[in-house]
Amino acid sequence: MNKTPQKTVERLIQYRRIVQQMRDAGQEKVFSHQIARVSGASPAQIRRDLMGVGYSGSPAHGYIIHDLLQGIYEFLGLTEKKGACIVGLGSLGRAILGYFHEQNPVLKIKAAFDTDPAKTGIVFHGTLCHPASDMASVIRDKEITVAILTVPVEQAQQAAQQLVYAGIRGILNYAPVVLDIRPDIFVENRDMIQAVEKVAYFSK
Amino acid sequence: MNKTPQKTVERLIQYRRIVQQMRDAGQEKVFSHQIARVSGASPAQIRRDLMGVGYSGSPAHGYIIHDLLQGIYEFLGLTEKKGACIVGLGSLGRAILGYFHEQNPVLKIKAAFDTDPAKTGIVFHGTLCHPASDMASVIRDKEITVAILTVPVEQAQQAAQQLVYAGIRGILNYAPVVLDIRPDIFVENRDMIQAVEKVAYFSK
Repeated sequence: MNKTPQKTVERLIQYRRIVQQMRDAGQEKVFSHQIARVSGASPAQIRRDLMGVGYSGSPAHGYIIHDLLQGIYEFLGLTEKKGACIVGLGSLGRAILGYFHEQNPVLKIKAAFDTDPAKTGIVFHGTLCHPASDMASVIRDKEITVAILTVPVEQAQQAAQQLVYAGIRGILNYAPVVLDIRPDIFVENRDMIQAVEKVAYFSK
Repeated sequence: MNKTPQKTVERLIQYRRIVQQMRDAGQEKVFSHQIARVSGASPAQIRRDLMGVGYSGSPAHGYIIHDLLQGIYEFLGLTEKKGACIVGLGSLGRAILGYFHEQNPVLKIKAAFDTDPAKTGIVFHGTLCHPASDMASVIRDKEITVAILTVPVEQAQQAAQQLVYAGIRGILNYAPVVLDIRPDIFVENRDMIQAVEKVAYFSK
């Protein structure tokens, strides 16, 4: 497994987003204190994180945005064109598929799965929906390593086991259930109700 | 602001979910090592976290699930029936609204907002969509403190400012942009592409 802490990876993904916004606004160079103002991390923290990526700016001229973005992409392994799949094309699954289609990120959703025969064989937002029973072969053929799980809660555990059996190494779980799977599989839980509850707690 | 670390609050929300699943399966008592097996936290960590909530189990009999859930609810302030609102009823906003409606959590979405006149005045999944221009009055009248932001990226910053002006103290931001707002407003960024990228990194 990786040794970089999760928080560092989250911050790097966030810096990339901030710096992309600056690039899109026409900026070519950036200083750590400029990233700090938007990200909430301290300039020293940002310089440490970016040094970990293997890219150092100059105190006088800051970071060159093009090179910085390239460095973060490489560090995150996002140049490899890895693929993701999505399991469960209810309203949330389709909304996520539409969002990826529109935003066109480096990491694409290469396949969708559903058990409903009315959905399989249909292309949603550019992605073909396969029957859930084809999971193992499609995931292997398309070299997919990551899955987004948007099935109803009562199907989540079984779908997760099928995904792991098919070779998936990481799951972004939107179902409101804690999955009971092998500890070497990375699971990120993103239940929306829990997220709102967290925000509510900190907005007292 | 609160002194409880974010990670602790996230774990408590997760324990509650795990313990609820156990209760729904008919269990009445639970030991920290049983929560540990599903959550990934150590039994010692779990006992520390739950002691912070003000509820201690017995080494011989564990925790009484009913009392434990009550304690976590109270600690999280979820007995207060706080309200949330959602801004932007595109496909993601409507999917989230449908999910809340179906799951019926303690913390409800009490109002929705959109700028599209074709959507305002309509009830989506039990929640009325108001024109975005009514934000301040609706949020005040319904005592809403939390907002879920699901508008397109180019509208996110302005919508966030409107929300803060209307009295919102916390934002769950699904737009892929880092919001530039007052530091006393709690913001949780939940961009789905960033989440998949994080999972991809840790599934190497």
